Amino acid sequence: MIGRVHHVAYAVGDLRSAVAFYEEVFGMRHLQTEMSEEQGVLAARLQAGDVELELLQPTNPDSPVGRFLARRGEGMHHVAYLVPNLERALGELESRGVELVDREPRVGLGGRRIAFLHPQSAFGVLTELVEERGE
Amino acid sequence: MIGRVHHVAYAVGDLRSAVAFYEEVFGMRHLQTEMSEEQGVLAARLQAGDVELELLQPTNPDSPVGRFLARRGEGMHHVAYLVPNLERALGELESRGVELVDREPRVGLGGRRIAFLHPQSAFGVLTELVEERGE
Repeated sequence: MIGRVHHVAYAVGDLRSAVAFYEEVFGMRHLQTEMSEEQGVLAARLQAGDVELELLQPTNPDSPVGRFLARRGEGMHHVAYLVPNLERALGELESRGVELVDREPRVGLGGRRIAFLHPQSAFGVLTELVEERGE
Repeated sequence: MIGRVHHVAYAVGDLRSAVAFYEEVFGMRHLQTEMSEEQGVLAARLQAGDVELELLQPTNPDSPVGRFLARRGEGMHHVAYLVPNLERALGELESRGVELVDREPRVGLGGRRIAFLHPQSAFGVLTELVEERGE
């Protein structure tokens, strides 16, 4: 069972003002801001009820989020779903013909094991899988 | 406090195949499919953990979702947040300078009271507010 939303991610131009907006106007709790050199983003996580909102500001215009922002502007970037076991989920998806961006798990924000699926295999939605951990 | 995600909505070209994908591959439970003449969509709701996934297929190319699909293709369409009282939330947002699409609540899918905020006031994200009801 893959289909539990873990977070929704937005690409933003200015992380500080986006965090302030969602904290002050929407009343979300800011959990953490983290720099990912590998992904070329400065990322903030906020608690949005039972799921998290992830705000992504590119630190490099050639990063995936930097290219997204240049091409499409600010907006929804991806949706992430929790899975109990990432290798098993990737194997099942691949056997059903789902195209994977990451065929092997890699380390994402917050040190979690993650993998992305191709948007063309998920109705145009860049889709991330996040492995559960004891929490 | 506005910031609890209620649902994430995707625009799709073929609702039947999108519902089958998220049911069979992701294991989500299909809750309901509903036609909204007013919004020009056929909409399916699926349970995606603690939030819902809403799949929207336009029934009319001149509807907002029809124009979205023609312009951008399939993908994420909007994110909806729960509020206890919609009039109060709209008043607070307007007083903070947030631009509203709907200044008054209207009836959305499932008979709920809803209102949309302008994407330009929410970092490019078309944002819906959904009023809670006893559930």
